[in-house]
Amino acid sequence: MSLKSKGTNAERELIHLLWKQGIAASRVAGSGSTRYPSPDIIAGNIDRKLAIECKSIKGNYKYIPKEDIEQLKEFSQVFGCESWIGLRFSKSEWLFVSLEDLSETEKSFSINRETAKRKGILITELI
Amino acid sequence: MSLKSKGTNAERELIHLLWKQGIAASRVAGSGSTRYPSPDIIAGNIDRKLAIECKSIKGNYKYIPKEDIEQLKEFSQVFGCESWIGLRFSKSEWLFVSLEDLSETEKSFSINRETAKRKGILITELI
Repeated sequence: MSLKSKGTNAERELIHLLWKQGIAASRVAGSGSTRYPSPDIIAGNIDRKLAIECKSIKGNYKYIPKEDIEQLKEFSQVFGCESWIGLRFSKSEWLFVSLEDLSETEKSFSINRETAKRKGILITELI
Repeated sequence: MSLKSKGTNAERELIHLLWKQGIAASRVAGSGSTRYPSPDIIAGNIDRKLAIECKSIKGNYKYIPKEDIEQLKEFSQVFGCESWIGLRFSKSEWLFVSLEDLSETEKSFSINRETAKRKGILITELI
């Protein structure tokens, strides 16, 4: 399976889990390839709106390009919503971390499984 | 050009016009083909959030399947946002109408160019 379709499958799985929680969720078309900032998923209910960048992760460590985070921040600022990173480490459930939970290196942000487990929240705690 | 790509092009045009107005806008992936209700476009700013169903129209009249409107209403209800229909009649600018501006027939909703012009608002008046 290509990296792209692996990512898309993870996003679809998350969309399904969000609706199950009573949270409306839509996948954004062409996220990462359009000229305008866009998250992977827009979700929310009456009270709160979330922009989510999704990462499906094989190992214990993930570098996230600064560009992805900048787009997420910019979208959330204009749209008026919260920014979240959805992390799906292999053999783990989805964990959601804030931008402040990421480590910043010169060219990217990063997060490891340990930090995600310690600081992340479950989908049931998201809204 | 296929009907589908014609629709996609119209949606892309609208995304562009919305960002130009300072309104964040994203196209929803697989709208109309996913198992969960979804609009064509999710847009908004700090104050307001909009779910938009887009129709690109060659003639002076458009039938809109009830299914499309039901999906739009259901999404907006769970997500907590306004429902709008974006109409792009040929040789006309985008006009935005509310669900109440549509006429209801047995199997579909409909709107004509005349009603859209009279009741619709321009993109500059949308937010």
